[in-house]
Amino acid sequence: MATDTAAPPTTGYVQPEVDVPALTALLDGRYAEVRDLVRANLATYADILEQAEELSVDDFRERVREVVVEMAATGQTGMGFPEEYGGGGDIGASIAAFETLAYGDLSVLVKVGVQFGLFGGAILQLGSKHHHDAYLADLVSGKVMGCFAMTETGHGSNVQALGTVATYDADAQEFVITTTTESARKDYIGNAAKHAELAVVFAQLEVGGTSEGVHAFVVPIREDGEPCADVRIEDDGRKLGLNGVDNGRLWFDGVRVPRTALLNRFADVTPEGRYESPIENPHKRFFTMLGTLVQGRVCVGGAGINAAKVALAIATKYAVRRRQFEATSDTEEELLLDYGLHQRRLFPLIARTYALHFAQEVVSGQLHDVFSGITDDEHTRRELESRAAGTKALGTWHATRTIQECREACGGAGYLAVNRFAALKADSDIFTTFEGDNHVLLQLVAKGLLTDYASEFEDLDQLGMVRFVTNLAVETVIEKTSVHKLFERVKDLLPGGDEWDQEAGLLDPEYQLAMLRFREEHMLAGVARRLKRGIDQKMNPGQVFSHVQDHVVAAANAHVERLVLEAFVEKARAVPDGDNKVALNLLRDLFALSTIEADRAWFMEHGRLTVQRSKTISREVNNLCRKIRPIAVDLVDAWAVPPEMLRSPDLVG
Amino acid sequence: MATDTAAPPTTGYVQPEVDVPALTALLDGRYAEVRDLVRANLATYADILEQAEELSVDDFRERVREVVVEMAATGQTGMGFPEEYGGGGDIGASIAAFETLAYGDLSVLVKVGVQFGLFGGAILQLGSKHHHDAYLADLVSGKVMGCFAMTETGHGSNVQALGTVATYDADAQEFVITTTTESARKDYIGNAAKHAELAVVFAQLEVGGTSEGVHAFVVPIREDGEPCADVRIEDDGRKLGLNGVDNGRLWFDGVRVPRTALLNRFADVTPEGRYESPIENPHKRFFTMLGTLVQGRVCVGGAGINAAKVALAIATKYAVRRRQFEATSDTEEELLLDYGLHQRRLFPLIARTYALHFAQEVVSGQLHDVFSGITDDEHTRRELESRAAGTKALGTWHATRTIQECREACGGAGYLAVNRFAALKADSDIFTTFEGDNHVLLQLVAKGLLTDYASEFEDLDQLGMVRFVTNLAVETVIEKTSVHKLFERVKDLLPGGDEWDQEAGLLDPEYQLAMLRFREEHMLAGVARRLKRGIDQKMNPGQVFSHVQDHVVAAANAHVERLVLEAFVEKARAVPDGDNKVALNLLRDLFALSTIEADRAWFMEHGRLTVQRSKTISREVNNLCRKIRPIAVDLVDAWAVPPEMLRSPDLVG
Repeated sequence: MATDTAAPPTTGYVQPEVDVPALTALLDGRYAEVRDLVRANLATYADILEQAEELSVDDFRERVREVVVEMAATGQTGMGFPEEYGGGGDIGASIAAFETLAYGDLSVLVKVGVQFGLFGGAILQLGSKHHHDAYLADLVSGKVMGCFAMTETGHGSNVQALGTVATYDADAQEFVITTTTESARKDYIGNAAKHAELAVVFAQLEVGGTSEGVHAFVVPIREDGEPCADVRIEDDGRKLGLNGVDNGRLWFDGVRVPRTALLNRFADVTPEGRYESPIENPHKRFFTMLGTLVQGRVCVGGAGINAAKVALAIATKYAVRRRQFEATSDTEEELLLDYGLHQRRLFPLIARTYALHFAQEVVSGQLHDVFSGITDDEHTRRELESRAAGTKALGTWHATRTIQECREACGGAGYLAVNRFAALKADSDIFTTFEGDNHVLLQLVAKGLLTDYASEFEDLDQLGMVRFVTNLAVETVIEKTSVHKLFERVKDLLPGGDEWDQEAGLLDPEYQLAMLRFREEHMLAGVARRLKRGIDQKMNPGQVFSHVQDHVVAAANAHVERLVLEAFVEKARAVPDGDNKVALNLLRDLFALSTIEADRAWFMEHGRLTVQRSKTISREVNNLCRKIRPIAVDLVDAWAVPPEMLRSPDLVG
Repeated sequence: MATDTAAPPTTGYVQPEVDVPALTALLDGRYAEVRDLVRANLATYADILEQAEELSVDDFRERVREVVVEMAATGQTGMGFPEEYGGGGDIGASIAAFETLAYGDLSVLVKVGVQFGLFGGAILQLGSKHHHDAYLADLVSGKVMGCFAMTETGHGSNVQALGTVATYDADAQEFVITTTTESARKDYIGNAAKHAELAVVFAQLEVGGTSEGVHAFVVPIREDGEPCADVRIEDDGRKLGLNGVDNGRLWFDGVRVPRTALLNRFADVTPEGRYESPIENPHKRFFTMLGTLVQGRVCVGGAGINAAKVALAIATKYAVRRRQFEATSDTEEELLLDYGLHQRRLFPLIARTYALHFAQEVVSGQLHDVFSGITDDEHTRRELESRAAGTKALGTWHATRTIQECREACGGAGYLAVNRFAALKADSDIFTTFEGDNHVLLQLVAKGLLTDYASEFEDLDQLGMVRFVTNLAVETVIEKTSVHKLFERVKDLLPGGDEWDQEAGLLDPEYQLAMLRFREEHMLAGVARRLKRGIDQKMNPGQVFSHVQDHVVAAANAHVERLVLEAFVEKARAVPDGDNKVALNLLRDLFALSTIEADRAWFMEHGRLTVQRSKTISREVNNLCRKIRPIAVDLVDAWAVPPEMLRSPDLVG
């Protein structure tokens, strides 16, 4: 353990000694074995990190494919599929495996995500036994590669408005898939440019002249390396990162597929051309289909959090080796990590990474339970979808921000490709966009809260939402929605009046939670009030929404941060007394207080922080940083990033 | 001009129509012709943007060299050199040319910076006529390529502690250059890996057993493509970006250079081995040498600001073409730029870009005046160095943040290399580090303010600074330093008492300036108080500094933001009445209020914003965004980024 020249003596406080293996075990949780398997595979294929730089785009794509297929053979990538098709039959395990893979090259990660998560997940979740028997075994082994052709050039976020059409031809008992306009071409589709033989294509289904909304079809797009008839494929070309993944564009010029190509779990077309579905409402049907694909979002959130760990591990280890400028001594330069500013830059990010890790554990646990049939009612599903969206947004923004800060904290050395940040930055950048643009996702989260999940999660019908909220009195909105439940809890926890916040201890988790709960409740009610006011003033609902949009996103962010803190508090509470618990509580305090500090203007504006209290919180954040200083390296070591994944021989060696 | 469906009617306010060419002329200022030459050259060599993706690293480096040499032939890159050596004899013109070059490929920009700014600048500023005659003409033409070998693996920010040694051998009348330890190898040196024949090497000069501190020497490192005897060169390899620049490492194993290789403007060694300098204090001598190199910092700041313009131009133009989700209409999806949140994401960045542009104009004007001998006293030089450091820090952080936000605002399309963000992000990332790490630079700025520029600018002697400040009573510090002058001005402008801020108009530039001035003054005094308190408590000065470091950086940031706003206010005031003035005032208001909003917690904590006023400012920021919406495209068009530099055929076409 590093010694701490900067930490002041604190009465009664005993600096903890971290038991790193025990902390790793806590973080790994029930899937320690799975994570170890992935770590071992990452070490085996560590060369891929260099190959990412050295190989041409074409060669690197081939190499990534090879590695993915070889990893598949270890069982690592198929854990979420039923055992009868060669899978592991454990959804939680598949998330754990995917997250851990994010310690390594992210092209491999994303190729795995495309093949097994998006393509395989669509076959599994939207198809029926016929499709499972036809495809699952081969796709789990990597023998058949596929892609997930949803996004079009013209529509990414608003998937209901896709332009590709699938018309049922009853005479031939076939669907005819057509790219109707140039903006309806499928775009950015991973695996499409080179490797996929099959595509799950999302298209507007037309049966007997009636549009039935977006459905998914299995469409062969390539045979023996050549595009199938009437399929045009174009390479998306070089990207900012992830150049080991072959993203491409697809056009369909009346491509015919058999009737059975429709992934028909939720809707089917009879041979004679009758559309049938157990879900009557077409809206609800579509979003039920989409909802089954939530796993991808949970995976990306976890991957972002783990990519941030790699960056923080490198920057923290570098900062206990690198010295610059004499500060406390005339004869020796100071370690970077002994500078208060450097601690301020890195430690709140370490704390937030821990917090997000525990929040991610909660959401992947819920995913496991819902998709394993342990708890699976509609409300739980929508809450899961909301939590997945929120955790994905916060986790991936955290990754972008953290990797950037860590690169800068490693100075010029951080700019050399060998030191990992080049790939980390470039490859993870798109995480904030794919599997749902973060801003759109947070709006969905807010919509769920405001309407108590009354409508389908993915449906960002802004006019509908504004009308829904404003058709009720604001009090009714608060009454009807989860805001109300929250508010009741907050009232119990916070003494009334203006003095309450002067009394509570900053390091009391109940205080911290009450603060985040209050913010969430107040922001949501504020959004409801503003929407109502706008409508009362006869503004166009869309215009009202546009004016309130920043509040909507802030409210959703407040909601997710509250969930993240709750996850942290619960996790830390369950840890037996001892030094690791002390360390986790330091991190929880730092996460909670730096989160409150970052939004302290809001808390002051809403009477929940006095000026004095606000300043005290900033001081306490600095105190916590100094307490974390001696255990910082242990805290990043506990993430157990394989040393081969850090590379950076001159920074951490 | 785009129509604005979202802007509400505002009583008495008339939406301006921007005269784009006139606004461009205002922005281009006195160097419009120079900027046009560079724009034309950029268009001529537009292929380089694709070549950056397509060519191998080796081939791209050669291509970049070619382009740099060909551009040199147009006179564009030599404007800062004396006319007798083929230069343009106009320092301001050379900054304008360099800044404008940042619209294009940034490897070309940085190669130009290395050759003409760093290498050429060192010869020009640190050498005497002998060196000018020997090198300038050839380096201005690009016939001789050189590098600037200052940074070592072990020392980047703390240049005084470099490990390379140059020992004078009086018998041979030669210096012997030696890399003493592995961490003393020169590192990240642009042009070193492939192209430089000469290096300006910074080394500890030893004469007759006495160390005289760091000096610069011209050292041949390569002949006919091969390293010179006793010089070892290694390639730094692939980097996050700027892969058209050949960065490398240099080791010197007793390399002998003649006595005249010492760049001897500020110090010399006589043939018999006597050290002589007109500047007695070795500290001061070193920092005087360094100070002459301030131009590089001014250039990087300007380049960052212009790189941000490219990103904002693409994202803004995309947002008036791209629609997603029905919002105000049931039949047509909404333009991205009509969403309030999208305006919030982009417009404050546009406003800040304008602000930084004008601040950059001030600092490059001062640079021109100082280095052209128009105003050149020591205090002015140090103020220039401080302003250059501060503008560089804020300008380059702004670039990183802006480019990221714009990439995300363009969604998946933003991730394709053809759409520019890949290169912009990767290539500009190092701007926050090179030519001075931004955090270190802001500490230097604060030191200058706290000590009234009493010591050399570059010298971040933290112990010395803490002692200096704490040896004076806090009042004396405030009295003695520029804080005092500031405070006097603020007192005149702000009515006393708690109500003053309720009275002033938010859109009054005097109010805006008074707010930023108050913050700066208060923060600086706070730093002085905290330093003093720490020492009074018998803490180690370095530890005191570490504890106060976040306040130090915040104070410097407040100082620079005040300078930036002042530059904007002055510029806007000088514009004749008319629509362009109205537009500039909107931008100034948005910059000022979004800056205050971002730090509104601090203003509330320090009694300069009431809760109500703080909320009003946030509302006004939203109002300003809606007013800017109809002219947003004109505002980015006024930057006159050549269309070829935007690429992004599907986004802006």
